[in-house]
Amino acid sequence: MKIDSVEFFYAAMPEVTLAADGSQDALLVRVTAGGYVGWGECEASPLVSIAAFVTPRSHGVCQPVADSVLGETLDSPADIARIAALVERNSMDLLQAAHTFSGIEIAMWDLLGHRFDEPVWKLLGYERSAPKVPYASMLFGASPAETLEHVKAATIAGFRAVKVGWGGFGESTPERDADHLVAAREALGDDGLLLVDAGQIFVTDLDAAAARIPALAAARATWLEEPFLPDAYRVHDQLAARSQGVGIAGGEGAHTVHMATNLIDYGGVSFVQIDTGRIGGIGHAKAVADYAAAKGVTYVNHTFTTHLALSASLQPYAGLADHRICEYPVEPSALARDITRSALELDSNGEISAPDAPGLGLEVALERLGPYLRTVDISVDGTTLYASGNSAGRTATVDA
Amino acid sequence: MKIDSVEFFYAAMPEVTLAADGSQDALLVRVTAGGYVGWGECEASPLVSIAAFVTPRSHGVCQPVADSVLGETLDSPADIARIAALVERNSMDLLQAAHTFSGIEIAMWDLLGHRFDEPVWKLLGYERSAPKVPYASMLFGASPAETLEHVKAATIAGFRAVKVGWGGFGESTPERDADHLVAAREALGDDGLLLVDAGQIFVTDLDAAAARIPALAAARATWLEEPFLPDAYRVHDQLAARSQGVGIAGGEGAHTVHMATNLIDYGGVSFVQIDTGRIGGIGHAKAVADYAAAKGVTYVNHTFTTHLALSASLQPYAGLADHRICEYPVEPSALARDITRSALELDSNGEISAPDAPGLGLEVALERLGPYLRTVDISVDGTTLYASGNSAGRTATVDA
Repeated sequence: MKIDSVEFFYAAMPEVTLAADGSQDALLVRVTAGGYVGWGECEASPLVSIAAFVTPRSHGVCQPVADSVLGETLDSPADIARIAALVERNSMDLLQAAHTFSGIEIAMWDLLGHRFDEPVWKLLGYERSAPKVPYASMLFGASPAETLEHVKAATIAGFRAVKVGWGGFGESTPERDADHLVAAREALGDDGLLLVDAGQIFVTDLDAAAARIPALAAARATWLEEPFLPDAYRVHDQLAARSQGVGIAGGEGAHTVHMATNLIDYGGVSFVQIDTGRIGGIGHAKAVADYAAAKGVTYVNHTFTTHLALSASLQPYAGLADHRICEYPVEPSALARDITRSALELDSNGEISAPDAPGLGLEVALERLGPYLRTVDISVDGTTLYASGNSAGRTATVDA
Repeated sequence: MKIDSVEFFYAAMPEVTLAADGSQDALLVRVTAGGYVGWGECEASPLVSIAAFVTPRSHGVCQPVADSVLGETLDSPADIARIAALVERNSMDLLQAAHTFSGIEIAMWDLLGHRFDEPVWKLLGYERSAPKVPYASMLFGASPAETLEHVKAATIAGFRAVKVGWGGFGESTPERDADHLVAAREALGDDGLLLVDAGQIFVTDLDAAAARIPALAAARATWLEEPFLPDAYRVHDQLAARSQGVGIAGGEGAHTVHMATNLIDYGGVSFVQIDTGRIGGIGHAKAVADYAAAKGVTYVNHTFTTHLALSASLQPYAGLADHRICEYPVEPSALARDITRSALELDSNGEISAPDAPGLGLEVALERLGPYLRTVDISVDGTTLYASGNSAGRTATVDA
């Protein structure tokens, strides 16, 4: 099969706020080849990722992503890896390329799943899709009482694990943060898993991060996520050495495999969190999962958007039964809920699994997206390089 | 002063080929504040970098670069650092942001230089601009004879150092590469500096890279540049341990300070090469230069475009007299030559220095750019977010 088309669908809520809520927009990708269709999703900044697909080339290793994808042969997972290597080489100097390609790569896996009537996780070599314990991802409340209330609501909804983050954590005093952690633990009960996301708030300030460790340990937090800039490995490792049993987590921003494995090798993390919509897709994420498993580090998905992205993010570690924790977007936008015809719902154990169905196992409800779709037009020298609704995804003149 | 406007000028040669020649296009940035003007340049992919300036926001930490820049106070270098930190935070999830901001940041330094009537290197704290030994950057020839001819031409033009790279190096046998290295050394004579650029060709293959070491050592190559993927630190370090005195060099793709310092700390490089047009600008590059100097690693600029970019890339280490080597684009495109009214020419010693003149010390010849300028139009939902020639750089509706 040859890749016939790559189309983008940029959907957004009517109002996109400054909240740390990644579900306010989405960039869906539809790939067709040999009469089959696959869907994927890029994370994030839809307009910029579209531009990286159609941009005029700058030179031999700064080519638009389209030039390494359109017309390529797609018959097997090996073809996906080959195309991924082409993009890495030909778009070496195009920074956004990894985000753009991630959604395309995911769609290629979905397409092959439909072609072979197999779930993606089987194509990846796993024999079964092991259940995961989803954690409800939420922001800290404005007060400890509000944090308690939010976490309590998640436990009532059936979650055995909760992650709280952002919302001022790390910006004030350790005592202020400790009060929120006590509230979260109280709401969760003794048995629940408590995860905490610092959102890079300490930048590179080891002491500021370390000042939060006693309260995190007292609240029996399983991990502290992204305390620092993601590539500040040394301070990660130093914090891990004094973290009193609280694991350090990170990796969501990785846009190459090595960015994630370096965090394991040099940053001392116990949990590596991968967003398939950023790292280059499912193949790259699987490489990290394999590496993490070999190193005794727990692989976790990073997902804050749709259930299409959630399924894509579960595939790379679906068969790693010991890697149990899974991020689950608990308060997604209406857009994120509407994008797929069905969702990955919690079972009676409060668990989820990657679907046992062809491809990603979810259908995109294109007919429901109308109210959210944004039209994009990009032209250079008066020639249209991209226009929403053009089924070719781009015009033939992009290389001119 | 408040930042009044940020304008982009996308210039390209009439035909942009697949050659590994980064001077085929350029993205100039003009910043105005308080009646002063500064110029900078982003590297690379002009359309995508423009899109990252004007894109609608995705969420609180995926904002367009414009939102952290326009209207900000710009009175001192501390303001530049403050704005850089704003961009890093507010555009955390927008991958292309570092490339976009680099050109803006450089323009802010140029502007402050004009405001205070000082060269940028003085604003950075250096007392003098030390001379650098420029190397002529060129591709390997199709045959050893052609490589010899090219290198010879550079020595006749007054260069005491030459870098040859790409052009099939590493793709065939070590013997083939050895023939080219012998030719290059022969053309250069005993005293010239020979530098070799592998362009990531060995990906992560340590043995393939190591197989070239004997010929590199025999030709007395000062460095082997980018043998591997830039964040594959371990193989860099392993190669460095068996490199027979040939230094390992890398860093041009770094888009954060830590990506460069990690290459020093974990990759065992002896030379760190920074592109101010990618790493976030002059401030970030200076941080790397300081770190390199402290660690006994030699700082080198990475420049393959215009003399505006060359001046910007010299500033961060202008005062580090022991860091002597400097990349010099020896065969730039007509566009790259035309962009500035003057150039940084080799003196009678075959050396160059960052200009002792306000700002970057070069004037942009806007009137000569007409034939090269590309017009860009970007709209979402029918609303123009960017249109070349709009002096606001973007319309007021981008945040709507």
